[in-house]
Amino acid sequence: MGRKLLTIRYLGVNYHGWQVQDNANTVQAEICRALEKLFCQKINATGCSRTDAKVHALKYCLHFDCEKNIPDKNIVKALNTFLPNDIRAVDCTDADFDFHARYSCKSKTYIYKIYEGIEDPFLYGRALNYSKKLDIEKMQKFADGLLGTHDFKGFSNANELKDTVRTVSECKVYKSNSKTVIIKISANGFLYNMVRVIVGTLIEVSEGKIDLNLYDEIFKTKNRNLAGFTAIPDGLYLYDVKY
Amino acid sequence: MGRKLLTIRYLGVNYHGWQVQDNANTVQAEICRALEKLFCQKINATGCSRTDAKVHALKYCLHFDCEKNIPDKNIVKALNTFLPNDIRAVDCTDADFDFHARYSCKSKTYIYKIYEGIEDPFLYGRALNYSKKLDIEKMQKFADGLLGTHDFKGFSNANELKDTVRTVSECKVYKSNSKTVIIKISANGFLYNMVRVIVGTLIEVSEGKIDLNLYDEIFKTKNRNLAGFTAIPDGLYLYDVKY
Repeated sequence: MGRKLLTIRYLGVNYHGWQVQDNANTVQAEICRALEKLFCQKINATGCSRTDAKVHALKYCLHFDCEKNIPDKNIVKALNTFLPNDIRAVDCTDADFDFHARYSCKSKTYIYKIYEGIEDPFLYGRALNYSKKLDIEKMQKFADGLLGTHDFKGFSNANELKDTVRTVSECKVYKSNSKTVIIKISANGFLYNMVRVIVGTLIEVSEGKIDLNLYDEIFKTKNRNLAGFTAIPDGLYLYDVKY
Repeated sequence: MGRKLLTIRYLGVNYHGWQVQDNANTVQAEICRALEKLFCQKINATGCSRTDAKVHALKYCLHFDCEKNIPDKNIVKALNTFLPNDIRAVDCTDADFDFHARYSCKSKTYIYKIYEGIEDPFLYGRALNYSKKLDIEKMQKFADGLLGTHDFKGFSNANELKDTVRTVSECKVYKSNSKTVIIKISANGFLYNMVRVIVGTLIEVSEGKIDLNLYDEIFKTKNRNLAGFTAIPDGLYLYDVKY
């Protein structure tokens, strides 16, 4: 009864992102379908962010309003019987009536997974394959330059002109095992394709195609053409959401 | 030209095992299709083992004979352009004319992956989910009893009566991370469903449903009903093949 905060986890391979679309399967559509079955009424689920097609979520938060009084644990259990196996409800709690999964969000963290060497069938759709070796140190130096409050328009494919200033509080490049490189980015908000453009840029920095200190010019000029390519969605995971 | 030993790696989720079957997609069918495209002739691929539907292979070996002279590296590269993304050629080398992927095999190692706790969309089809905690110590004690040369008929779903004696050289139960339990078994050969029955038995040992020392009676009586359930194929990976 009242407003609920639901935490889910999903493999994005089979979905056209979060947001409901005509003629495309989306996570929001699956969640609304499951909520409707459980509560026997149309329920709208509001997510913490639109994620692109094929992007994954290790933690994704959404809110919804319901009238029936069902214990939170049972909501989680029941939803998991209605949801497909690549989407799992993890936790459900009461939320204040003015809580909003998107607007109440203080910061989000994404990770991007790259694995070096030959293609691996177990990582297909789950990471970017890079046939050579990445220069972690160079990438980290550029990443350090992204920290703080800047206009990230040049690091995004956003068309809107208003409010493209964001604060990046963390941007780490590290190896999680001998072949896997992780790029971890936290910010108070992200522009369209921002993480994927930053990842593409860091890869081009590693390759020496983009100068180690170019971030300043990209911030100043807001010129998207100075930044790197847009990395494929496969390696991108929403990792944490903070309220 | 001549006989070749090809090493591949595959995610089994979408396949009805290795062996060609009517009306079902198999790894062998995909490999033969790719070899045919590359060598412009019908080629038969002989695998190191039949794997069950949905079982994975981190390393799988097969041999084939060809007439065209193509460098091994190019064979690997070309096959990967013809194969689906969930099957990858890893290595190709010359083999003796009397080498046989199945009969020349000295030992094989399988691992079985179990994760404790709530269901994880990222592990769906790739591991067995166990909602409680496993008793690793108890499982290892039973596993130790399986080492050596025994009649494993009671630990399999094999119908044949002849030659059900196998030598298990390794049977380890360990945690690969805080939530994942791995069962690793090496033997000179495996009966039908042998690893999956051993895994089901070890789980029932952990639950106290099967006595710690029952392996002796199962060896003596060859009574399949004394052993545990057949664990789902999802958690099973062919891990290594030795010649």
